[in-house]
Amino acid sequence: MTVHRGYSCLSFLTDYGTWDGFTAACHGQFLHHAPATRVIDITHEVPPGDIRRGAVVLADTVSTLPPAVHVAVVDPGVGTHRRSIAVRAGGHILVGPDNGLLLWAAARLGGAVEARELTAQQYWRHPVSRTFHGRDIYAPVAAQLAVGLPLAEVGPELPVHSLVRLPEPRRSVSPRGEVPTANGEVRTVDRFGNVQLSLLDVDLHHLASVGDTLHLDSDGRADPRVWDTPLPVALPVATTFGDVADGELLILVDSDGHVAIAANGGNAQARLGLHPGEPVTLHQPPSPT
Amino acid sequence: MTVHRGYSCLSFLTDYGTWDGFTAACHGQFLHHAPATRVIDITHEVPPGDIRRGAVVLADTVSTLPPAVHVAVVDPGVGTHRRSIAVRAGGHILVGPDNGLLLWAAARLGGAVEARELTAQQYWRHPVSRTFHGRDIYAPVAAQLAVGLPLAEVGPELPVHSLVRLPEPRRSVSPRGEVPTANGEVRTVDRFGNVQLSLLDVDLHHLASVGDTLHLDSDGRADPRVWDTPLPVALPVATTFGDVADGELLILVDSDGHVAIAANGGNAQARLGLHPGEPVTLHQPPSPT
Amino acid sequence: MTVHRGYSCLSFLTDYGTWDGFTAACHGQFLHHAPATRVIDITHEVPPGDIRRGAVVLADTVSTLPPAVHVAVVDPGVGTHRRSIAVRAGGHILVGPDNGLLLWAAARLGGAVEARELTAQQYWRHPVSRTFHGRDIYAPVAAQLAVGLPLAEVGPELPVHSLVRLPEPRRSVSPRGEVPTANGEVRTVDRFGNVQLSLLDVDLHHLASVGDTLHLDSDGRADPRVWDTPLPVALPVATTFGDVADGELLILVDSDGHVAIAANGGNAQARLGLHPGEPVTLHQPPSPT
Repeated sequence: MTVHRGYSCLSFLTDYGTWDGFTAACHGQFLHHAPATRVIDITHEVPPGDIRRGAVVLADTVSTLPPAVHVAVVDPGVGTHRRSIAVRAGGHILVGPDNGLLLWAAARLGGAVEARELTAQQYWRHPVSRTFHGRDIYAPVAAQLAVGLPLAEVGPELPVHSLVRLPEPRRSVSPRGEVPTANGEVRTVDRFGNVQLSLLDVDLHHLASVGDTLHLDSDGRADPRVWDTPLPVALPVATTFGDVADGELLILVDSDGHVAIAANGGNAQARLGLHPGEPVTLHQPPSPT
Repeated sequence: MTVHRGYSCLSFLTDYGTWDGFTAACHGQFLHHAPATRVIDITHEVPPGDIRRGAVVLADTVSTLPPAVHVAVVDPGVGTHRRSIAVRAGGHILVGPDNGLLLWAAARLGGAVEARELTAQQYWRHPVSRTFHGRDIYAPVAAQLAVGLPLAEVGPELPVHSLVRLPEPRRSVSPRGEVPTANGEVRTVDRFGNVQLSLLDVDLHHLASVGDTLHLDSDGRADPRVWDTPLPVALPVATTFGDVADGELLILVDSDGHVAIAANGGNAQARLGLHPGEPVTLHQPPSPT
Repeated sequence: MTVHRGYSCLSFLTDYGTWDGFTAACHGQFLHHAPATRVIDITHEVPPGDIRRGAVVLADTVSTLPPAVHVAVVDPGVGTHRRSIAVRAGGHILVGPDNGLLLWAAARLGGAVEARELTAQQYWRHPVSRTFHGRDIYAPVAAQLAVGLPLAEVGPELPVHSLVRLPEPRRSVSPRGEVPTANGEVRTVDRFGNVQLSLLDVDLHHLASVGDTLHLDSDGRADPRVWDTPLPVALPVATTFGDVADGELLILVDSDGHVAIAANGGNAQARLGLHPGEPVTLHQPPSPT
């Protein structure tokens, strides 16, 4: 049996918002079971039921936090037959529904090495509601794990390969005729309107260096007529917003290591109209012949 | 005199929002007077001055928290002759303006057993502004109560029956002709668009069992033409969202014990157009004759 | 050398929002370096890149907090040649970009007495991104200052007069003909729509007493036709919202000591259409001749 000495931190991500008392009710469980453990709220503004958005934000944040028990709840299937799980990865534990929400974070932490189904009801809040497992199952179990409950106590082991996974975003670098090209998709859009792609820094380095120009294209943009920037568009590769003139679009590697399209002092998403999941291509300008 | 050993938790609910520094200024008072006490923010997104909404969220949340001093400030009468109070209920203390905000929470905690008017200015922050009693009166008094100040110190006792009360929401179960009917109103609407009624689980059980169908009607809906769901509408009684097809409306008992109208993966409020305070009727389908 | 014993509090203000995990990543740094230090989030809802709004909220809040290290990040120039600084003022330390964000707060705390450029990379998180200095520089340096790192360690001293400053808001009290007048501008607008002016309580006392009437005018309002209140408008000077009838406009001194235009139970900004930076005049009614 593994020796658990607990974690100094709980993190918490949901689609509960802050309009109601839902997140507070979960904080009450954290405080009840783990009064000395600090809680970091990652976000509660995941759009209702948007598992993919929750998975992206969780993955991008957990690796910047100290070893922790991370509770994530975006759970449109609450109260149905979907499983509830705890997953160990890289010295962290992830707790939430088995709907794909946790696994990109687990991968970022080094990969899931152990998974358990939450079935041991003695660690739950009772009576257990049918619609609020964040308060009644995930928060109390996570808090008890944070103060030293062995992972093996929460329920039986599950094969990691049996866990529900989200489709992986498109990401490939391949020749298209003679023009080196990276094919990806919009991974997410942040509060500033920066359009983060599924492509990584290595993909960008395959195509271009800082100071070069790349063409951005998409055949998925819903209605190109309503956006102010026609595609394809030639964009400079830079390292930070202020490397280009005020209002100009640019390509950079963001603080998470992903390729992103941004606008200096502006909102790239509002300019380009690219939404999560839309396919995106970056390629070098055609050589003059 | 009661022995006070303090509370491990302060909770905090306001209509201050998080756009300004108002909530932070109150947190400064919490930290100053009660540096070791954890603070749980319930919500600060109560619409400005909406005492009823604040009272609902406070009531639904406090009973899920550990014994605490709960500070609630939705206070359109700040600086006028409305009283400031502290109320003991069920091992908790509630602090805020005497405008009805606190009493549904007190009832949920078992009922107010002692009320005090906040008049002892030595526990306030000075100088006291006319417009920000959250920072200058409620937060510092609550924090001092949390670390052991006896309730009797904050000011003279008030008869509980003298406290300002909000009108109780409609709630009755009565025969209407031969058709069992429950009459209530919309109590609140949450971030997901779930329409919570003033009716309780016992009222629903009086009418129907899981799997039955009930008719939902309202004669108060502002302009029925703009909503996509005509009333009355027949809805299934279920136990969780996923019990019905994607997008379908349902009736369930929510995690707080109230009857609610929800949509699986959708927003019931946007579909039905029912707002807080609107009268709602649930009744069995007419028997075929 | 000053003896540092650390601070009991970190405060945190940004334009990062709460939609992404950006603020949480910074909280991870706080927790890593200062696990016992309480963190107060002032706001993360500063509009993207709006340094002036960030400076206003920071200034109004810091003086209500216990001695603390205040981290503020509204940083459109991130990763360019703008400097990163730590400023000591009145027993507090302010940490952030050298773009004017910190200095109104320093003035409110008694004035900047020491400034340092953040150059000592051993206190940073590595690798340092080009676009997220909140996580990689400001948060870790601030947390280490909070637990006792001497300010002199973070980098070389800068002359306080070399720091970037925002333009000071208009504020003057002067005779205009025979009518005493105060000239100011809109300093900020809060969540309730209260329009805070750059004028202070002493300026108001120069013109009027509680119960008097003053005329409010502006020649800067963008399109006066779309607002329901023509200017100039005569408004009563009062001490709190409830001193006037429901929905009425009033002039008061707010909890921060600034003159503000408010509406009892309403939103003055929505009525008057005055935005931050717009010039505003208060003057006595013309004497009858």
